[in-house]
Amino acid sequence: MIIIGEKINSTKKSIAKAVIARDAAHIQEEAIKQLQGGATMLDANCGTLDAADEPEAMEWLVQTIQAVVDLPLCIDSPNPAALARGLAVHKGKPLINSISGETERFKHVLPLVKQYQASVVALCMDDRGIPANYETSAEVGIKLVNDLLEQGIAVNDIYFDPLLRAIATDTAAAMDCFKLMELISAKFPGIHVTCGLSNVSHGLPERKHLNRAFMILAMEHGMDAPIIDPTDPVAMALVYATNTLLNRDKRCVQYTRAYRQGKLTL
Amino acid sequence: MIIIGEKINSTKKSIAKAVIARDAAHIQEEAIKQLQGGATMLDANCGTLDAADEPEAMEWLVQTIQAVVDLPLCIDSPNPAALARGLAVHKGKPLINSISGETERFKHVLPLVKQYQASVVALCMDDRGIPANYETSAEVGIKLVNDLLEQGIAVNDIYFDPLLRAIATDTAAAMDCFKLMELISAKFPGIHVTCGLSNVSHGLPERKHLNRAFMILAMEHGMDAPIIDPTDPVAMALVYATNTLLNRDKRCVQYTRAYRQGKLTL
Repeated sequence: MIIIGEKINSTKKSIAKAVIARDAAHIQEEAIKQLQGGATMLDANCGTLDAADEPEAMEWLVQTIQAVVDLPLCIDSPNPAALARGLAVHKGKPLINSISGETERFKHVLPLVKQYQASVVALCMDDRGIPANYETSAEVGIKLVNDLLEQGIAVNDIYFDPLLRAIATDTAAAMDCFKLMELISAKFPGIHVTCGLSNVSHGLPERKHLNRAFMILAMEHGMDAPIIDPTDPVAMALVYATNTLLNRDKRCVQYTRAYRQGKLTL
Repeated sequence: MIIIGEKINSTKKSIAKAVIARDAAHIQEEAIKQLQGGATMLDANCGTLDAADEPEAMEWLVQTIQAVVDLPLCIDSPNPAALARGLAVHKGKPLINSISGETERFKHVLPLVKQYQASVVALCMDDRGIPANYETSAEVGIKLVNDLLEQGIAVNDIYFDPLLRAIATDTAAAMDCFKLMELISAKFPGIHVTCGLSNVSHGLPERKHLNRAFMILAMEHGMDAPIIDPTDPVAMALVYATNTLLNRDKRCVQYTRAYRQGKLTL
């Protein structure tokens, strides 16, 4: 299982403050807690800073995190200059978050993927924006993955992100997303599927229930690299339980090990 | 959605004690709490009593529950004499729990289903016991449903129970169960599917995570009548969330109503 820890993201005020103040202790504490929770990769995002400051901050963030945890990072920015600075100091195989079918983004991010032999999150959108329905998503997603393969990117270096819509505005959004995950997984064996889970519940109350149920269903439909909070024991317990139910945990070894490590007790 | 409240079952010590003492107040309190939690039907089981005492106790139990809640009951006993006494005093359309492909049970329960125009839980087993694999389950389940249909039982009066095995002893058990639910739902449109969820986690620690994740996945694969604890706010919140994600809740009306009624706040 791949678990991408979502917590080091400057859309959170405490993280933004810590990045601006270069408060290494706070960032490192968040990193260690996520590692202990079961993360296998950590997101590193400082995208709310001024564009001019973000590249230097990203370099600092990558070095600060990897000084204390031996995990690969998901270097997360729409800004190619910030990606480049983070990648230059990253140890191990990085995951770039993200490329898309947008002409400019594809052109500027692809060379970084090649240069650093990175994996890359492929957002299912193009110059027309986020697709409004399943049919367009399928068309945009297949084209994007094919374009990456044609550029020599290995299929198992691609993390497809279906760009989930909110069910409050389209009650078919989750089912469409599952169908898209299945289509892409079947058409491109070996591809990874990731997903920002919380979009699904936008605009509804008590969102955690929807996010958790969505995560469980998405795992069945091909999502193997959820971006979640690994310090949330409910979410992590459900990940282990689902993995076991889906017959991906021979002799229930991962589940019982998580239990012995105290990860399943709420 | 059909939610069968599981709590009035004499395998629980407090219920056994209340039934033996004919403590109506305790039973009625459990009934009302389950109604308030969102149950649409309540299980009534006093099967741990001596066989000679069970019929009279069942009659009392049915009358005691229906004196305070206006819900149909799932009259739950392997003992046809107890079923008959409960059915004779039941108001509304009862659900008999259960019939199976076992020769004796089929012969003794079928006349009750007909006499009371009841719905019936059909356990996927026969004289050979509980099937050990998917292929045998499929064969036994199809034969049992066909036998009931041939006897004139309406398809939407049948609640198929796949008799889930434990993943601790067979890691394919949950996936096999989903496949069986899909097979039966597709072959017999209009049939209901129920399930005793907790079997899946037998022998493993912190079972609630497995039971909850199983419930969510089973809802996608055709289970429309879970037997659960409607006073557990986590379970109920996940039921509402899953129903909404599966696009069975137009304009998210049921989810937002449950929120306004305070059912989603843990």
